[in-house]
Amino acid sequence: MQRVRDKRGWGLVMDKDRLKKQIEFVVEIDKLKSVYRQTLLMNGERNENDAEHSWHLGIMAILLSEYAFGDIDILRVLKMVLVHDLVEIDAGDTFCYDEQGARDKVEREKTASDRIFSILPSDQAGEIRTLWEEFEAVSSPEARFAAAIDRLHPLLHNYNTLGAAWQKHGVTSDKVLARNREIDDGAPELWEYAEDLIRSAVENGYLASGEQVSAANVEIRPT
Amino acid sequence: MQRVRDKRGWGLVMDKDRLKKQIEFVVEIDKLKSVYRQTLLMNGERNENDAEHSWHLGIMAILLSEYAFGDIDILRVLKMVLVHDLVEIDAGDTFCYDEQGARDKVEREKTASDRIFSILPSDQAGEIRTLWEEFEAVSSPEARFAAAIDRLHPLLHNYNTLGAAWQKHGVTSDKVLARNREIDDGAPELWEYAEDLIRSAVENGYLASGEQVSAANVEIRPT
Repeated sequence: MQRVRDKRGWGLVMDKDRLKKQIEFVVEIDKLKSVYRQTLLMNGERNENDAEHSWHLGIMAILLSEYAFGDIDILRVLKMVLVHDLVEIDAGDTFCYDEQGARDKVEREKTASDRIFSILPSDQAGEIRTLWEEFEAVSSPEARFAAAIDRLHPLLHNYNTLGAAWQKHGVTSDKVLARNREIDDGAPELWEYAEDLIRSAVENGYLASGEQVSAANVEIRPT
Repeated sequence: MQRVRDKRGWGLVMDKDRLKKQIEFVVEIDKLKSVYRQTLLMNGERNENDAEHSWHLGIMAILLSEYAFGDIDILRVLKMVLVHDLVEIDAGDTFCYDEQGARDKVEREKTASDRIFSILPSDQAGEIRTLWEEFEAVSSPEARFAAAIDRLHPLLHNYNTLGAAWQKHGVTSDKVLARNREIDDGAPELWEYAEDLIRSAVENGYLASGEQVSAANVEIRPT
């Protein structure tokens, strides 16, 4: 950029190529609104998409930061949750209880990140990549808190849809407890809350207890 | 809250009633995902909803803050854009070129804000209300920048859907220019970009020029 005088006095001339890249990125990521997750909206109407989920995490980050374990930079958390699913534009959403999908998830998402982030000017591509990698590695108090609310959010959706996604995929309480235990690392009080919620889901019949064999896990063999 | 010793040493006991209110709010605002706007997704597939729009503004705030006029607190902008449409859960989306809807918009949104924000603990209800009122009043550099990207965003959608919402509602370029001129107050370079975009939309036939009388503006009288 270059300093010039305009109607407001001396200022910077806009770098049109830079803005063009930024807008191109803004247009590209509209596709996140068409990446659907396994969770239903809380009214059960349809599946939730990644853009909606990311927005919801943003609000949760603002309201629940007081429960974060350790000091966190809330601006960093907000940026992190807003960008954390962008790679799914190419890589798709991998259901957290899908063991097969988990196998090549890292590779698929790495390839996606290379394409998508590189649309941006390099300084911003670098910033977004750092945030995303930190989130994936759960390598800071911010990332641990972001991971905690990222886990808690679908629990709330599942509970409020009386366990719709759990039942559809035959997920049992032992898996839900194992998957979500990391909430404890990022926000211990939220984990306490989540444990109560999971317990209540089992009691209400929304979630099959780990001891029960769910239909989806029964192997059908020809006799 | 009360200080007690737990496994991590002396700490604060969670105020369960406080967390209950916060979670109740998080659940309530899921409804924003069912408040549809006039703008279509950029792939033209369906209308965009308020939660998706708010997420998109969050990313735009992160990436485009360098164009803000005056010093801004980016955390404040992010919080503002993420909550700015919550009142539409009750008040509905008012299309920005709907003159009739604009008449009672303020009253409808005030009533909505009273109900929705009061679900939260009072300190957080106050914080969210302040952010929302500041956004509505466009009374700070943060609010002016938030308003700028809130205007720019549907322009990008309209342009990329070859003017779908403009044409459906018979909106002409003079109205689009008048409505969006306030981008200049919050982010002058983005206004320069927006003007180019509007000009290009007219040239490409996506947007009727102000001189043309659009079908929707012709009054039909019995002869």
